[in-house]
Amino acid sequence: MRSVNRQWLLASRPQGPVEESNFQLVEKEVPAPGDGEVLVRVHYLSLDPYMRGRMDDARSYAPCQPLGEVMIGGTVGEVVESRNPRWSKGDLVVGMGGWQEWFTSDGKGLIPVQRGLPESVYLGAVGMPGITAWYGLYRIGKPKEGETVVVSAASGAVGSVVGQLAKMRGCRAVGVAGGPAKCEHVVKDLGFDACIDYKAADFRERFKAAVPGGIDVVFENVGGAVLEASLARMNAFGRIALCGIIAGYGGQDVSLRNVRSLLVNRLLVQGFIVAEHLEIWPEAMKELGAAVAAGKIKYRETVAQGIHSAPRAFMGLLRGENLGKQLVKMDVSG
Amino acid sequence: MRSVNRQWLLASRPQGPVEESNFQLVEKEVPAPGDGEVLVRVHYLSLDPYMRGRMDDARSYAPCQPLGEVMIGGTVGEVVESRNPRWSKGDLVVGMGGWQEWFTSDGKGLIPVQRGLPESVYLGAVGMPGITAWYGLYRIGKPKEGETVVVSAASGAVGSVVGQLAKMRGCRAVGVAGGPAKCEHVVKDLGFDACIDYKAADFRERFKAAVPGGIDVVFENVGGAVLEASLARMNAFGRIALCGIIAGYGGQDVSLRNVRSLLVNRLLVQGFIVAEHLEIWPEAMKELGAAVAAGKIKYRETVAQGIHSAPRAFMGLLRGENLGKQLVKMDVSG
Repeated sequence: MRSVNRQWLLASRPQGPVEESNFQLVEKEVPAPGDGEVLVRVHYLSLDPYMRGRMDDARSYAPCQPLGEVMIGGTVGEVVESRNPRWSKGDLVVGMGGWQEWFTSDGKGLIPVQRGLPESVYLGAVGMPGITAWYGLYRIGKPKEGETVVVSAASGAVGSVVGQLAKMRGCRAVGVAGGPAKCEHVVKDLGFDACIDYKAADFRERFKAAVPGGIDVVFENVGGAVLEASLARMNAFGRIALCGIIAGYGGQDVSLRNVRSLLVNRLLVQGFIVAEHLEIWPEAMKELGAAVAAGKIKYRETVAQGIHSAPRAFMGLLRGENLGKQLVKMDVSG
Repeated sequence: MRSVNRQWLLASRPQGPVEESNFQLVEKEVPAPGDGEVLVRVHYLSLDPYMRGRMDDARSYAPCQPLGEVMIGGTVGEVVESRNPRWSKGDLVVGMGGWQEWFTSDGKGLIPVQRGLPESVYLGAVGMPGITAWYGLYRIGKPKEGETVVVSAASGAVGSVVGQLAKMRGCRAVGVAGGPAKCEHVVKDLGFDACIDYKAADFRERFKAAVPGGIDVVFENVGGAVLEASLARMNAFGRIALCGIIAGYGGQDVSLRNVRSLLVNRLLVQGFIVAEHLEIWPEAMKELGAAVAAGKIKYRETVAQGIHSAPRAFMGLLRGENLGKQLVKMDVSG
């Protein structure tokens, strides 16, 4: 049954944009689980913007991704062999399996998930991206009914959930996304009140028109010009959940204008990483799972086929080419 | 007993730096208190950076200062006539009397203060500046023993109290101020652990050396390059209390670099105005008054003599020429 375990290692750190040569594909033996361990076969790998930050040698959230080791990444997969009494063959588990087809684990950090919803949703709307949306919006943004919530990267795995959660709370949800197709998807499929194309020449005017009552909550995934536009329209006592600064992932410094708004409008800004708030995961996963099952949260996926495709799919993600959650389906043979 | 009531009105809005011609001195009759009112003779007027923001027509915290009306400002003075049963002749009161020698009030917004400490302290260390320091440091910064607290404009009325409160909580207090004289005062007289001259050519190197363990709390009064330097040295989960952006009061846009630190270090930034948190004033005034009486909080004052001097003293404040709290002593005859 076992085949080889293909793995993508970080071969070199990017100088500017990520290139396929920054990664190296190797083949290893599928590992045997030790005493107290399980062997997991990965079904889907999640690709996420945070991985770009880990590729640098710079000071970041966490220890950077070591050279020559398997790229980190969230996975959903199945326990195929267990030498740990807490886990059984056939269990479906979410974990940080990395960019590889098989991995062993002592069970710490594995989250058991229910069958019933499509497996891949546990890497998206009911997984880290959805929980990120839930935490940032509810625990930092704290939107009240009737308030206006702006979210950048609105068609992405996180942003799409932010806007739908905001609608569920009776807010006006305004997205920002790149290009007319994404914006149409955000409004027509996801039910946002508006979505503004940041690539449009008249972005600022359109954005202003979309928030006639000002902005109360910003869920920021991008930074740069989009955040500046939001700062210029914030209402007093607004909240900004700072989830990502994609605009700075190329390594360039990020400079921000309209900073005076932070003081003038007595704004709150809070940077966060959802992995540091594990205490809310069960509550968030329960609520998100119910909302997905009830059709209140819709989602799209872009699924790359086979582990070979991971680096190219990741580069596409950083260029904004995906729609919705970017995944890699690992076993494309069966 | 009554003489004329001299008042400074806002005559025009500044185009660039504030000029004396933006103000107009007028003489009026001393008003008679109506039923339920008191007449207050102003002893000291407080001059504060926030006044600069009010002079603009721009969107700001509060309604802007109307043209042709008495400039707003905090005052300490004495009730000289009362037609309100809650107040008695001789009461010492803090209030927003404005840039004038006398005013009437229905008592709302007046705070009675104890005699015993010098009157002027209620416009400084035990008044709005001190309470601003108390609120921003304790309620936003929440410093823990052993943490490093950085405060800009450290020799000013707010900053000087921030650093001394931080020392009382067992923190390392690092100030930033303009020029060697102010920095020497901050360390030798106020007891900060270090104070860095932002005008020094090697400011960044000196600043870095002063915070060897990184920064946990920033109390920001200035913005601009000083805030950028702090952002570059923040520890994870740091807090930034945003009290003022003097660097932007000239009307120019404020642009900020090192913004990525907000996300990477999961920072909290909170803009605030202490006048919106009146519920904490009694507790803060009690603690600050006790600390001043015990000699744990020291302060300096720069006192301009007579109401004529108010505009020039205010312009000096904006240029950083004062040391400690900038006041105007109103009645210089007796």
